[in-house]
Amino acid sequence: MGAAESADYGLLAPAWAGTRVAALTGDTALLQALLDVELAWVRVLADAGLADPEAPAAVAAVSDASLYDAASLAERAQGGGNPVIPLLADLRKLAQAQSPAAAGAIHRGATSQDIMDTALMLLARRALEAILSDADRAVTALGDLARRHARTLCVARTLTQHSLPSTFGLRAAQWLHGVGQAAEGLRTAALGLPLQWGGASGTMAALTTATAAHSGTDGPFDLTSRLAVALGLAEPVAPWQTNRLPVTGLGAALQDFTAAAGKMANDVLLLSRPEIGEVSEPRAAGRGGSSAMPQKQNPVLSVLIRSAALAAPGHGVQLQAAAAAADDERPSGSWHVEWQALRSLLRLAGGAAAKLAELAAGLQVHTRALERNLAAAGPLVVSEKIMAVVAPLLDDGVAGRGKKLVSEAVAHSLSTGEPFATVLRSTVPEDILSDDRLADILDPVNYVGEAAALIERITAAYPGKPSA
Amino acid sequence: MGAAESADYGLLAPAWAGTRVAALTGDTALLQALLDVELAWVRVLADAGLADPEAPAAVAAVSDASLYDAASLAERAQGGGNPVIPLLADLRKLAQAQSPAAAGAIHRGATSQDIMDTALMLLARRALEAILSDADRAVTALGDLARRHARTLCVARTLTQHSLPSTFGLRAAQWLHGVGQAAEGLRTAALGLPLQWGGASGTMAALTTATAAHSGTDGPFDLTSRLAVALGLAEPVAPWQTNRLPVTGLGAALQDFTAAAGKMANDVLLLSRPEIGEVSEPRAAGRGGSSAMPQKQNPVLSVLIRSAALAAPGHGVQLQAAAAAADDERPSGSWHVEWQALRSLLRLAGGAAAKLAELAAGLQVHTRALERNLAAAGPLVVSEKIMAVVAPLLDDGVAGRGKKLVSEAVAHSLSTGEPFATVLRSTVPEDILSDDRLADILDPVNYVGEAAALIERITAAYPGKPSA
Amino acid sequence: MGAAESADYGLLAPAWAGTRVAALTGDTALLQALLDVELAWVRVLADAGLADPEAPAAVAAVSDASLYDAASLAERAQGGGNPVIPLLADLRKLAQAQSPAAAGAIHRGATSQDIMDTALMLLARRALEAILSDADRAVTALGDLARRHARTLCVARTLTQHSLPSTFGLRAAQWLHGVGQAAEGLRTAALGLPLQWGGASGTMAALTTATAAHSGTDGPFDLTSRLAVALGLAEPVAPWQTNRLPVTGLGAALQDFTAAAGKMANDVLLLSRPEIGEVSEPRAAGRGGSSAMPQKQNPVLSVLIRSAALAAPGHGVQLQAAAAAADDERPSGSWHVEWQALRSLLRLAGGAAAKLAELAAGLQVHTRALERNLAAAGPLVVSEKIMAVVAPLLDDGVAGRGKKLVSEAVAHSLSTGEPFATVLRSTVPEDILSDDRLADILDPVNYVGEAAALIERITAAYPGKPSA
Amino acid sequence: MGAAESADYGLLAPAWAGTRVAALTGDTALLQALLDVELAWVRVLADAGLADPEAPAAVAAVSDASLYDAASLAERAQGGGNPVIPLLADLRKLAQAQSPAAAGAIHRGATSQDIMDTALMLLARRALEAILSDADRAVTALGDLARRHARTLCVARTLTQHSLPSTFGLRAAQWLHGVGQAAEGLRTAALGLPLQWGGASGTMAALTTATAAHSGTDGPFDLTSRLAVALGLAEPVAPWQTNRLPVTGLGAALQDFTAAAGKMANDVLLLSRPEIGEVSEPRAAGRGGSSAMPQKQNPVLSVLIRSAALAAPGHGVQLQAAAAAADDERPSGSWHVEWQALRSLLRLAGGAAAKLAELAAGLQVHTRALERNLAAAGPLVVSEKIMAVVAPLLDDGVAGRGKKLVSEAVAHSLSTGEPFATVLRSTVPEDILSDDRLADILDPVNYVGEAAALIERITAAYPGKPSA
Repeated sequence: MGAAESADYGLLAPAWAGTRVAALTGDTALLQALLDVELAWVRVLADAGLADPEAPAAVAAVSDASLYDAASLAERAQGGGNPVIPLLADLRKLAQAQSPAAAGAIHRGATSQDIMDTALMLLARRALEAILSDADRAVTALGDLARRHARTLCVARTLTQHSLPSTFGLRAAQWLHGVGQAAEGLRTAALGLPLQWGGASGTMAALTTATAAHSGTDGPFDLTSRLAVALGLAEPVAPWQTNRLPVTGLGAALQDFTAAAGKMANDVLLLSRPEIGEVSEPRAAGRGGSSAMPQKQNPVLSVLIRSAALAAPGHGVQLQAAAAAADDERPSGSWHVEWQALRSLLRLAGGAAAKLAELAAGLQVHTRALERNLAAAGPLVVSEKIMAVVAPLLDDGVAGRGKKLVSEAVAHSLSTGEPFATVLRSTVPEDILSDDRLADILDPVNYVGEAAALIERITAAYPGKPSA
Repeated sequence: MGAAESADYGLLAPAWAGTRVAALTGDTALLQALLDVELAWVRVLADAGLADPEAPAAVAAVSDASLYDAASLAERAQGGGNPVIPLLADLRKLAQAQSPAAAGAIHRGATSQDIMDTALMLLARRALEAILSDADRAVTALGDLARRHARTLCVARTLTQHSLPSTFGLRAAQWLHGVGQAAEGLRTAALGLPLQWGGASGTMAALTTATAAHSGTDGPFDLTSRLAVALGLAEPVAPWQTNRLPVTGLGAALQDFTAAAGKMANDVLLLSRPEIGEVSEPRAAGRGGSSAMPQKQNPVLSVLIRSAALAAPGHGVQLQAAAAAADDERPSGSWHVEWQALRSLLRLAGGAAAKLAELAAGLQVHTRALERNLAAAGPLVVSEKIMAVVAPLLDDGVAGRGKKLVSEAVAHSLSTGEPFATVLRSTVPEDILSDDRLADILDPVNYVGEAAALIERITAAYPGKPSA
Repeated sequence: MGAAESADYGLLAPAWAGTRVAALTGDTALLQALLDVELAWVRVLADAGLADPEAPAAVAAVSDASLYDAASLAERAQGGGNPVIPLLADLRKLAQAQSPAAAGAIHRGATSQDIMDTALMLLARRALEAILSDADRAVTALGDLARRHARTLCVARTLTQHSLPSTFGLRAAQWLHGVGQAAEGLRTAALGLPLQWGGASGTMAALTTATAAHSGTDGPFDLTSRLAVALGLAEPVAPWQTNRLPVTGLGAALQDFTAAAGKMANDVLLLSRPEIGEVSEPRAAGRGGSSAMPQKQNPVLSVLIRSAALAAPGHGVQLQAAAAAADDERPSGSWHVEWQALRSLLRLAGGAAAKLAELAAGLQVHTRALERNLAAAGPLVVSEKIMAVVAPLLDDGVAGRGKKLVSEAVAHSLSTGEPFATVLRSTVPEDILSDDRLADILDPVNYVGEAAALIERITAAYPGKPSA
Repeated sequence: MGAAESADYGLLAPAWAGTRVAALTGDTALLQALLDVELAWVRVLADAGLADPEAPAAVAAVSDASLYDAASLAERAQGGGNPVIPLLADLRKLAQAQSPAAAGAIHRGATSQDIMDTALMLLARRALEAILSDADRAVTALGDLARRHARTLCVARTLTQHSLPSTFGLRAAQWLHGVGQAAEGLRTAALGLPLQWGGASGTMAALTTATAAHSGTDGPFDLTSRLAVALGLAEPVAPWQTNRLPVTGLGAALQDFTAAAGKMANDVLLLSRPEIGEVSEPRAAGRGGSSAMPQKQNPVLSVLIRSAALAAPGHGVQLQAAAAAADDERPSGSWHVEWQALRSLLRLAGGAAAKLAELAAGLQVHTRALERNLAAAGPLVVSEKIMAVVAPLLDDGVAGRGKKLVSEAVAHSLSTGEPFATVLRSTVPEDILSDDRLADILDPVNYVGEAAALIERITAAYPGKPSA
């Protein structure tokens, strides 16, 4: 049996199967990134006079991933513990046919960890571009949603129970707060992805030897700087073969994004329950159906975003545990753990971002249900305000007397079912508080605090891209 | 971009790429398991008179996974959140061409979770057979190793430092202890993998309706019992759509196996360090090489086994977190997390088992290094015994005086570098302890305790398969 | 600053603070377990003639944890990396005052890992007794609940949406299914907790020396067998200093329990939302209040059970990662990870069990809300049945025609809001299906499948203790 | 049984027991932080004219944690699910005795999550100061170590095997690279810890009401800005009651630190193995002993640092999973998970930092062992250089011929044991390469690449504090 039979197309991962990021992180995309790194290095060497001037063209001619057999390479990667070794063998063989000098220049002064780490950073950057493009769409859509519903009243819920009045706009703004902050984190991470170039043991010795032998004045760090620029990666202080913060940091940012997306998905799953009915997912042909029940319209986008958010921490813990287990000048096993974990996190974030963009842009908000649920919550949702505003009026010189009376009114209403407004009216003499004033106090529209200002603060902080 | 471009052949997973279990858990194998479940159910229905007698043959004709496009199904699985829904559409279409009656019988009374959960249990059982076959080879080899080296002295190490004399046989027996116990756990898990069959909401209602409409006397549980037998799965007390112990239990057993394999790998990585040199991995063409250093012989089997052991807990935590997040009559997202996590654990265990079998069978034991390291540890490794046997002779009526003297001798030897035997000889008068008796006490061969008996107990408990 | 200032009473852990298990797993309880193990061993030694006959009494006199300063020991434990070493120093000092011979017998032939591992198993067994007592109460209460509501109709929910009719009894039975199965797992785990006794490096060498020096015929294994019996622990095949399956296995069982409890808590949190209102938590003075809103009645039991379920996997992953990192004859750091992780899991399970018992026994079921929600779901919840029973009547010789018509009726009802019953009636001619027959089909009471039988199967499998 | 009996002083956590951070994060310190937040808020209110001018003094008089009973509060925290509610009751009672007006001002416009989140950020900042102080000591010591050993040759190791020559200074510099980078991350995190102030549901409604009623011009955000300044916390864009990035971000930074410390500990554990012997831990009275073996000198600092590094990811995954599970306007259970997880991470990082500072400052480097191990590795460690420099000389017009010859020489040396230098000499004609030139090439001192430059880059990037 060969590796080809074990192919995974995402059949068990509807959270990301078929997305752009899935393709950008597949084995073929990885091969391409590995080849891109080797080729970019040959170019740097040639520019520095350390490789034949023809070498770049010759290597470029054989640097298309489609020329290589991913399944075969996967199998052969067991021999040395990473795919660079067999890929290098195949690449050199193909390059040799083009130009022996080119073949000789390939991988000069590099070690497989240099290629692997750098290629994964390159892969990550490419995937992050796609993730951020979707995240930006979500940010824009959530900003629109927040502004559109800045005055739409709703009931807030804490620990599952009705708490205070709020606005749907603030709820959307808080989704934006999380998603926007996490997207910034991803953007920062994308800018900091570093080149790895340390040679066999992090001393860059082979490179020192190569440059020393050459009459030019460029030293090893000149070359690695140029490679970083060519690949669009950051230049690190030093090789990080055993200091894995670039990997855990990226992993943390990806988890923060799936968590922020997951928060919104959790809410949509709750709010789209039939009994609550405040929102619905956007409809799309072929989505949300059941294999048995024709009436079902499942909130599948949210289910899958939530599944991505729940899955991500397991990969995050792999990265952190791997970093903690590093040893020597190259980790003996923990390094190898990172690869699939990082890919999985990119894919989960990519799937979540794509679905979130669609969810945020198409979310249906049912204002009548928002009104109904707020009305059902009744004036008890402003009991906090009554404690603050009405209770002191009842103190009658005895501190705390008013609070006690209001608490009793609340308790009486809860236990008897008698409307709180009625109970309160009979507790508070009209000469102390007129009917109009009491109605004002009980009206939830007058108790949404800084909801509007918060929406402004959040949308200003995370403005998104103009929806051109 | 389609799902095909995202294909993962294991290029980032040398721990399992190209192994038998990888193929047994690929998307194609999953499709086959899903089809096998649907087909087995049509057979049960037909046997019970609930489906056309021709239906099984017609469905069987279109139940080969190679007839279906995994990448396309993966993409379409997003619509309903699982791959059963699009597969069912394709299966019914193909079956329709064979026999409309057959097409109508497919999936009758089932829900997609029934098919998915059952197929994953089937996939797991198939994978476990392969894993156990390799685990048994490892058990047998470790038993041989333990017996072969039952009298080979070595130095034991605790908290990285030399502690007491032991035997290499006991070290191997302890590897066996872990691996054997974990393999038993996998075997038990394999026997308990349950069928899932609850219908759309776990009431089996569609099945009740179907069987009630039929004149036969078979009830729903008769049918599901037969399905369990047909598929070689256990019959559960009730559907477990929201009680995920079958999944977490399997996950725990798989992690225990990778951890046990990892323990041996960790030791081999330590013991094969050049300075220690007590063991070497079996050599194989193309294994252990480096991309830059021709002299390197890396212990790649152990590196990859260790990487599997380090990676597994991240998938385990996904399963446990998913189980803890279950809600309603079908979990809204956490169920979906399990699939890739379970597959990853099967693959990691499969890769670890295959490599462990090879490692255990081919491990080279360097007895001269074992002797050298024990000798370098010197008689201090029996200081515990001296405390117990010699110290009391020096008490001279003062309890504790002897211990104090011995401790001082140890400290003196450690600080001055003077051989402990010499220091001890000058501490203990010859009339109390003759040279011969002292030499006996200091000889590590006389202080390996129950090493031999423990080897016997462990190899008896985990006898493995006779190496026929 | 001393360790006393760092004391943790559970202020950050309302999920378990103040519970019986919290006390059974505190530092004092741990000290007691450590002392109990040392004392039991002195007794075994004395019985075998290997310690002074007076030693047990002398050691017993100083084996009360209240004689020791946990905070000071915690601080001094840093020196050797575990608390046994300083405790032993203190214990010997106190024992010395009683009897020098007794002091000399203490810890003979043992290593600190023997005491630590064994004491933790003892601690676990004591905690498990308390956990199981609460779990049994929950099992009994859930069985009662399931039987009481065997005929109480409700609407089932999958992926958050209404799916089919079911009974509240089956919902409760499924909670029982999970909790009962997990409790069985804990009971099995409790019976298998093994003694650890291997001496400094797992060879039992000191013990061999001690018993060999003695004229009696008892060998080391006779003594360890007796110790296991005395402590109520299982006798393992061999020391398990580096094979941590006893620890990971216990951890897995504890996580399965918190997950099962968490499943019920998740549901109670959903079902007690005001808009759903199907259940309420039992009321208790001082529970469920808010610091700001007097009307709030938060489902705090469920919130805290859920928090325990969500927290547990993090500790589980610590145990698994520790097992995978074991090396040598005693792990250099990973062993130390287990202690707090195991204690945390015991506490989380203990807190969850205590709260679950109360929740299950006092859960308020609001049958009117159950009816209301089922009624609101309407006859669409039996659409699956209509597909199976009514659709074929409409085929009119064209296979699939009926299904198409029913699907169109469902879609029409969903899009227009016209009652499904009306739409269906106009789709199905009365001569094919009478009004009475149609009403029967649409009545959810006739579509709960095997709900009653499943309740019987589950309650029979997990009968709990008779509520005496 | 009460919460007091469950007290945890760190008996199971030698990695942090007795450290400064343990005390700074104990239940008493938490109480103090909670009280500090309530008091600071009363001050802000009084300054704004929203509370009696005497209130701050009255509240300050009862804001000492020692006035409260942590164990009792822990127990009562179960009622509302968090410790703020019972603490507030006790605080108000004590304040009432001082001044009823003061009591009335306490907690005005706040919710328990505001106090809890803010207090935990305050606690974190205090702990981070202590952690950073130790981290800075470690950074300084590692910089010294790196510079001191800039020319001390050693053998580098990749995948456990000897790879190339390097310097011990570079090894130390790489420890610094990891620790310095992680310490920067902690410092950044410490600066960004945000205030939480949203009121009952994140709308700040109570505060809006309070400020609106007052004639002053200060709005809610003016007050919260002042509170942030008073507490030394950052002012967030908006309340983050359900967006937990501040918590996960801090958790990630703490894990990165324990991982970096763990990397060094892993290396010290390897390098201090008797057979390798390149370093020893600093000695200290009472450290490193064994309960049974008087000769043992265990590297306990490293064992405990490593245990902290291995334990941390389990708490990190709790934070990430909690963030992903957030819902509504306050999470129903996941919020509660964070508290112990965050405390545990602070403690693990605090313990690791304290031990790391000691380890880095006192590490003993055994240059003779470094020389011995490098010599034992022999000239094969420069085989990479020979491939680059010597092989081309042997090509004799046939590309690749030289590499083949060198590879054969390496293989011959490895299989026969014949010294590589001898084999190489016989492979390379003297007229091509003189003895002197060959000796130069084989001398490891000439193949350490950019080791010195890398030390400079790293120590420049992470200069630490001047050791005043």
